[in-house]
Amino acid sequence: MSNIDIKSVNAIRILSADTVQKANSGHPGLPLGSAAMAYELWAKHMNHNPANPKWENRDRFVLSGGHGSALLYSLLHLFGYGNLSVEDLAQFRQLDSLTPGHPEYKHTVGIEATTGPLGAGMAMAVGMAMAEAHLAAKFNKDNYPIVDHYTFVLGGDGCMMEGISSEAFSLAGTLGLNKLIVLYDSNKISIEGDTDIAFRENVEKRFEAFGFQTLVVEDGNDLIAIGKAIEEAKADKTRPTLITVKTKIGHGCPAKEGKASAHGEPLGADNVKALRENLAWESHEPFEVAEDVYDNFKAIAKKNADVEAEWAQLFADYAKAFPEMKELWDQYHNENIAKDLIQKEEFWAFDNKPEATRNLSGMVINRLKDYIPGFIGGSADLAPSTKTYMNGEGDFSVDDYAGRNLHFGVRELAMAAIGNGLALHGGLRAYVSTFFVFSDYVKPMARLSALMGLPLTYVLTHDSIGVGEDGPTHEPIEQLAMLRAMPNFVAYRPADATETIAAWYHAVTSLDHPTALVLTRQNLPQLAGSNKEGTLKGGYVIEDSIKEVPDAIILATGSEVELGINAKAELAKEGIDVRVVSLPSIDVFEQQSAEYKESVLPKAVRARVAVEAAIDFGWGNYVGLDGAYVTMKGFGASAPADQLFKKFGFTTENVVKAVKSVL
Amino acid sequence: MSNIDIKSVNAIRILSADTVQKANSGHPGLPLGSAAMAYELWAKHMNHNPANPKWENRDRFVLSGGHGSALLYSLLHLFGYGNLSVEDLAQFRQLDSLTPGHPEYKHTVGIEATTGPLGAGMAMAVGMAMAEAHLAAKFNKDNYPIVDHYTFVLGGDGCMMEGISSEAFSLAGTLGLNKLIVLYDSNKISIEGDTDIAFRENVEKRFEAFGFQTLVVEDGNDLIAIGKAIEEAKADKTRPTLITVKTKIGHGCPAKEGKASAHGEPLGADNVKALRENLAWESHEPFEVAEDVYDNFKAIAKKNADVEAEWAQLFADYAKAFPEMKELWDQYHNENIAKDLIQKEEFWAFDNKPEATRNLSGMVINRLKDYIPGFIGGSADLAPSTKTYMNGEGDFSVDDYAGRNLHFGVRELAMAAIGNGLALHGGLRAYVSTFFVFSDYVKPMARLSALMGLPLTYVLTHDSIGVGEDGPTHEPIEQLAMLRAMPNFVAYRPADATETIAAWYHAVTSLDHPTALVLTRQNLPQLAGSNKEGTLKGGYVIEDSIKEVPDAIILATGSEVELGINAKAELAKEGIDVRVVSLPSIDVFEQQSAEYKESVLPKAVRARVAVEAAIDFGWGNYVGLDGAYVTMKGFGASAPADQLFKKFGFTTENVVKAVKSVL
Repeated sequence: MSNIDIKSVNAIRILSADTVQKANSGHPGLPLGSAAMAYELWAKHMNHNPANPKWENRDRFVLSGGHGSALLYSLLHLFGYGNLSVEDLAQFRQLDSLTPGHPEYKHTVGIEATTGPLGAGMAMAVGMAMAEAHLAAKFNKDNYPIVDHYTFVLGGDGCMMEGISSEAFSLAGTLGLNKLIVLYDSNKISIEGDTDIAFRENVEKRFEAFGFQTLVVEDGNDLIAIGKAIEEAKADKTRPTLITVKTKIGHGCPAKEGKASAHGEPLGADNVKALRENLAWESHEPFEVAEDVYDNFKAIAKKNADVEAEWAQLFADYAKAFPEMKELWDQYHNENIAKDLIQKEEFWAFDNKPEATRNLSGMVINRLKDYIPGFIGGSADLAPSTKTYMNGEGDFSVDDYAGRNLHFGVRELAMAAIGNGLALHGGLRAYVSTFFVFSDYVKPMARLSALMGLPLTYVLTHDSIGVGEDGPTHEPIEQLAMLRAMPNFVAYRPADATETIAAWYHAVTSLDHPTALVLTRQNLPQLAGSNKEGTLKGGYVIEDSIKEVPDAIILATGSEVELGINAKAELAKEGIDVRVVSLPSIDVFEQQSAEYKESVLPKAVRARVAVEAAIDFGWGNYVGLDGAYVTMKGFGASAPADQLFKKFGFTTENVVKAVKSVL
Repeated sequence: MSNIDIKSVNAIRILSADTVQKANSGHPGLPLGSAAMAYELWAKHMNHNPANPKWENRDRFVLSGGHGSALLYSLLHLFGYGNLSVEDLAQFRQLDSLTPGHPEYKHTVGIEATTGPLGAGMAMAVGMAMAEAHLAAKFNKDNYPIVDHYTFVLGGDGCMMEGISSEAFSLAGTLGLNKLIVLYDSNKISIEGDTDIAFRENVEKRFEAFGFQTLVVEDGNDLIAIGKAIEEAKADKTRPTLITVKTKIGHGCPAKEGKASAHGEPLGADNVKALRENLAWESHEPFEVAEDVYDNFKAIAKKNADVEAEWAQLFADYAKAFPEMKELWDQYHNENIAKDLIQKEEFWAFDNKPEATRNLSGMVINRLKDYIPGFIGGSADLAPSTKTYMNGEGDFSVDDYAGRNLHFGVRELAMAAIGNGLALHGGLRAYVSTFFVFSDYVKPMARLSALMGLPLTYVLTHDSIGVGEDGPTHEPIEQLAMLRAMPNFVAYRPADATETIAAWYHAVTSLDHPTALVLTRQNLPQLAGSNKEGTLKGGYVIEDSIKEVPDAIILATGSEVELGINAKAELAKEGIDVRVVSLPSIDVFEQQSAEYKESVLPKAVRARVAVEAAIDFGWGNYVGLDGAYVTMKGFGASAPADQLFKKFGFTTENVVKAVKSVL
């Protein structure tokens, strides 16, 4: 350990402590405890170029314990990422600053993932490592390892307690993701006190059970031991590695070290002073770092720029030697590759016969696989039911990372986070899948998809009471409302083949948000009035009234659009002139112009009936105070689906009645 | 293995196969594979009395793999639970039958928990075992072990893959819950095929890491080995036990055994025939079981009735010896114990000063602990922040099961399931707690609380953008909509002390549904117009207009009620006469009579403005087509809370503007 290394580690500590102190809010404990391992990793073992944070072959680093963001900001500042300044650090947790409370992807340069919900970063890192393995298998040629990087993730006891990390790491072990390296900041302290109150397990043994190499660094300040462990981790060519680094939370601050109080509140001015003295830090001014420390980081950054330059040369040679691979590479990295499908007739073709939308989705997936080479995905052990298997594309496994079909096991939450990781890595367009009711399990990670604006697709089948015999535990009733309520998340509930294909088109052309496709188990008819343009606008008139101003409007989605159309026909016999509006995506419809919305749902028409086999929560802004609902009022039941639709009132007769009740 | 034992095991298999075949829907694989272990357990090792399924000291059995419900129904029928008949089995998965697709608590006699979402049963069983340990610590006296039973849970590979089971079992190991016995139906088959595609971990080693005793039964049909393992499990007085039982999915059915296709579809008539032949089953008629088999089950049931009778005698002696304990026992088992609090002035008292509702909740919890002896709860490592600690009541730990403060660790999902288990066990009224944004993690288990109608309380603090500096990952925006959308789930978002106390009163007096309390981090003023009666109705006029028919209505909840009141005052200066309605619980308000609702929100008044620092999704049915919203339009941000409220438009000025816009 050279003097400059120690000074550099302490620079991270001091900057982090000052950052939190200035904000008078934040988490100093993790940065102080983890500064040494972070420095050793970033300075000596990680390929990254501060001058080009988007270098495709950089090593990825995820701070799973996102509350320790000050650590990350200190590192990014010292390494010169995007000229993140000490002024930025001093604006920590302030309105519109570059240094928000938790690291935010796309917001601050060099942040690989938004983290905060514990465990999430762990699972996203697994997704990144899977992306690397897949792209390496697809692209690398002898002597041309153009995809060849590690994924590092750092987290603490909380990340280890969360079930998502067990899910993700069990899969990582199964898949032998040897370029995944987990740094476990083990400080034995949680918010409620010593981890012994709730967490006495042998973490290393658990990871061995998962198939990891496990290494332990007894002293979290021993840079040499940390470096040795990282190199041992890299040297294992068959297993991912867990490096347990024993640290003290709040290291260096005499009054706080090893205490729960170091975790989530500023040290206090006196303690920051004591920290400076204890670390023999030269300067007394906040945010002041000696030139030799900056020089050290600059020199490292320079060396790393050279590493990227070498890679760029390798890639240029590769492009020359394998021009067809270079072309493929560009296709993988072209986010707009699917746009042209809007004109391809064969993409929009379907048989005019009743079909479950999950089957239609399966058909589309097997078209998309040919149009989008970087299309990859799978299900949480339900592919035969969710129809998400890409035929002939192989299975992603330890024996074949080139397989495009992912098998997540029964692990919905980790699946969604891994999907985020695949999307974050770049070069791929991913989808994940489970039963719609189990979107409950994926919610925390779907929220991160939305927050980060990742174009991940969620294929959620077995919609509503159409599930039938499996009963209420398997019948999604309130899940649609949940997805619609989430900002920057688009949910589609298509009514037939055209709407299903259009929903997929929306999903694979989106750039800044996730999309869920909510699909039926049961067959639905092909509707004469459905069209892609309307579907891509989220809602449209699928069967219009004769009069310009209809007597009433029926609003429906998915399996209930047919019901609306049938009711319209019945009402016509009695001289009641109804418009039927299909609203496959309320989220997308809401984004349309006021004029378009008024053209579909004229404000003057107050006789409105919403028909949807889901809870009515959220329909009020279309139905108003004068309309009616044919919707679910509670949980479903176990019985054949057709009987359930009747039992819960989803009949033409009942829709007719509802319309009449509001005329 | 006696002949009658083998015949009895096969009776379970045949009945289960017939049940699924008759329904032409369901999961025969688990019942066929697990019949032997289930029989051995229920017949020889479990204390349960079919004549009294609610016997307090019965051993609990949870089928975590709920899709194998036919196994459970066969057992319940054969043991004579509630006269569940073969006709009931023949109505499997049919409308309104006693035998729905997945086991449903309260619906079918002898079902200890609703299961289906994988892993849930595992974690609920941990909760039951914790309840047993706590009640035993509270009640047992030397020579009077009146609380002394085991909790058994059976599940397969899917349950083991789900993160929730790692969360729950890591805690179970930490707590040394030695009366928890897990039967792992290990058949190496998942829906997508061999479990090797996604699950190669060493499960036993993982459980050893958690602190379990682990035992392996190599042949899942070896009743003697299974029995021996169960007794070894019982003999371990310090650790919970995992018994891995190696089985073949679909055992006994030549064409299906060991195949994924045995899992989730009927065997087919031919294969059921082949099963009969293969098992040398005497009868060819569906659902026909020989008398000697019934006699065997009857004899076992009789023996078990004697076991309960012995316990009843022990309990009677205990009641005599310790009358004060008998009184306490009755208090623990009195679900209505908190009802009288409505009249106790000291329960409703508070200081008239600004206070965060989380702090007020903490005050109430520390009152309730004295009124409700069976009150127990805790948080997912956030008690100092969520204010859920009961002072002086000790910590539930391996050293002291009498402690009433639970430490779940950073494991939100398992926490909610454990809360369900505590409620299912009986004798306790439980609460669980985390940050509101992490209600996302608890959602799948909160849904089970609602489905089962369990009166569990969720204390969810750090509401909305009031979280401030922690930023969007920690700011719940869409979570309120999510909870409100869930059937049979009550969410309260109180505005001050009176509303907070009333919300707690609702929670601890509820009998058939869970309640969430959504609480602020920041201080709120005490409102002059708030009252408990209105709060208990879910919504009420907190500040009325002068005129009988107001010019406009402001609807608000929680921290925004104050804003509505301030806006009303401003508008009054301009001669605009506004009513302010506080809606702490939309769920409860919806249950009120049409008359009451009309009295609060007269339909004639269309100038309505909803004010809530959450996404507006779900407000439309009150705001209608003519109203306006002062609500969140997307995710929050990282900054001091007061700045965020301004940034996102939560100002008196803005509410005034919104009201004027709809006049």
